[in-house]
Amino acid sequence: MEGRKVIGWAARDVSGHLSPYTFTLRKTGAEDVGLEVLYCGVDHTDLHQMRSEIMPINYPLVPGHEIVGEVVEVGSEVIKFKLGDKVGVGCIVSSCGECLSCNSNSEQYCSERVLTTGGIHRDGTPSHGGFSSAMVVNQKFVVKIPEKLALEQAAPLLCAGVTAYSPLKQFNSPDKAINAGILGLGGVGHLAAMGHHVTVISSSERKRVEALQHLHADSFLVSSNAAEMERTAASLDYILDTVPAVHPVDPYISLLKVGGKLTFVGVATKPLHFNTEDLLLGKKTLTGSFIGSIGETQEILDFWAEKSLSSMIEVVKMDYINKAFERLEKNDVRFRFVLDVAGSNLE
Amino acid sequence: MEGRKVIGWAARDVSGHLSPYTFTLRKTGAEDVGLEVLYCGVDHTDLHQMRSEIMPINYPLVPGHEIVGEVVEVGSEVIKFKLGDKVGVGCIVSSCGECLSCNSNSEQYCSERVLTTGGIHRDGTPSHGGFSSAMVVNQKFVVKIPEKLALEQAAPLLCAGVTAYSPLKQFNSPDKAINAGILGLGGVGHLAAMGHHVTVISSSERKRVEALQHLHADSFLVSSNAAEMERTAASLDYILDTVPAVHPVDPYISLLKVGGKLTFVGVATKPLHFNTEDLLLGKKTLTGSFIGSIGETQEILDFWAEKSLSSMIEVVKMDYINKAFERLEKNDVRFRFVLDVAGSNLE
Repeated sequence: MEGRKVIGWAARDVSGHLSPYTFTLRKTGAEDVGLEVLYCGVDHTDLHQMRSEIMPINYPLVPGHEIVGEVVEVGSEVIKFKLGDKVGVGCIVSSCGECLSCNSNSEQYCSERVLTTGGIHRDGTPSHGGFSSAMVVNQKFVVKIPEKLALEQAAPLLCAGVTAYSPLKQFNSPDKAINAGILGLGGVGHLAAMGHHVTVISSSERKRVEALQHLHADSFLVSSNAAEMERTAASLDYILDTVPAVHPVDPYISLLKVGGKLTFVGVATKPLHFNTEDLLLGKKTLTGSFIGSIGETQEILDFWAEKSLSSMIEVVKMDYINKAFERLEKNDVRFRFVLDVAGSNLE
Repeated sequence: MEGRKVIGWAARDVSGHLSPYTFTLRKTGAEDVGLEVLYCGVDHTDLHQMRSEIMPINYPLVPGHEIVGEVVEVGSEVIKFKLGDKVGVGCIVSSCGECLSCNSNSEQYCSERVLTTGGIHRDGTPSHGGFSSAMVVNQKFVVKIPEKLALEQAAPLLCAGVTAYSPLKQFNSPDKAINAGILGLGGVGHLAAMGHHVTVISSSERKRVEALQHLHADSFLVSSNAAEMERTAASLDYILDTVPAVHPVDPYISLLKVGGKLTFVGVATKPLHFNTEDLLLGKKTLTGSFIGSIGETQEILDFWAEKSLSSMIEVVKMDYINKAFERLEKNDVRFRFVLDVAGSNLE
């Protein structure tokens, strides 16, 4: 793949509209893996990036950071992978390798991490993601897809999945009943898979059936129902907040037990408000968690394979992608789009 | 002290103005300690309560929750104390004794805790604090003042002191250098006493000399100085936020290392704002801590006695109290008022 030309779909401006774009891959280096992209998950963060809503983006931008591919080339020093391996790439493709975060297996917090898409490589070139026929990635940032896991099922685990898994590991205590809350439906399966009693908290009744019947949540709580909220007050060990938009926080803090924790995994584009009183009087915590480490990404793939878990996805072709984002923005998807990149005949 | 009449100073309405007030103490029960009040610290929370700014108050309200006294009566089942003992009472005087918080030595988080002042006892009577000649308190909520500690020095430890100590205990690792930040000057001595490198963060230059020369902080950072803030970014293990008012949060979050923690110990009367992005990308935490347990209160008294520590206080008589609160509100005190209750000849 030396300087090989590939075709991706790229956003050209803040409209975020995607269209075909030809660009050149870097030469596969000694520690690099060259891969043909098979599937790529479609995530809300892609939309933020495509529209420059989080940080300024240098267009064109090729999105996609839940990438499943097949190894088609390996550098001379690649030992983790061989040709034909099915592999995954998540949200980051580089880090400094030397800081405290890198040295404690949490390279996602390295201040020099390079995002898979919308980032800048050390050589100054923009990083392009998995809405593309092929990629070249350093082996350190590549994980192995277990044989038992369907490839299209693996894709959403590489960002969404590990994003839920990483902050929840700490609650993984088999001998203690854990009451979990979640805002948004995206991570419900992960909480349930860890054996937690899962309460889906939603602003409306709309998702009740999906939550309870399709996703097998244990209960459903409508945040505008004052009586229900009152009954649930101070009962949850943690809340996973996946809402990537401005929303109230105090009502959810009130649901936490003493010492309870609310973890944001979705970035709101404007400030959130909260009252300090409930944090103080209940020793409660607001915190954030950013994806997960490469090690944790491998862990969740293995965990899902071992437990034969699956999530509900809608597989679409690349020429549907603009429509898919339109529907994503309206929450009109159960529960995640996965692009069939190889089946889209990009080249 | 059966139904003994005592004189305190009470607020009568939301103006918060204090004036003499005669009321009746409860009979000293089997587990109660009767004490003559010697000293009482003057705290910002008193002011909030006197003005009904945190929760509605039933007037009259006798403030004061940093109480040092001498035992003058003991109930038949009191074994911890004897006549003549010098003792302390902090922010709470009762809890349920049965919940998870009570059973894990963190009774300050019990939802049925009764505040020393401004609370309601189980018999329906209002709780009155230490701006009074005498008190009756259950022995479980009374601590012993070590002999080596001056009585007026003990007072501020019973709320302000333990409020700083409780959330900092977790950082007490002798083999690791800890970079601490603090908003407000109140707790500086406590951070320094734990051996942390203390940076005082202030909105203006005004407190620089006090912080560095009088309180022996290691450095001083003005939050409006963008260059200084930039240099200090991502360098602090924790920040203790003692500001009991609305203030920005994001500039301080940016000072925290990956995994760093900002702990609120002062209640702001209106919501604070923050951006989720820095919490996520740095796995940072906003949390709160409410005073400390009775056990921790005893710990900090013993710790200060053992290390022969002292803090700067200004001892005043009761007839100065309205003026003292006026000055407190303007931050015109180094660094804490302590009321000489016994020397004020209330009766």
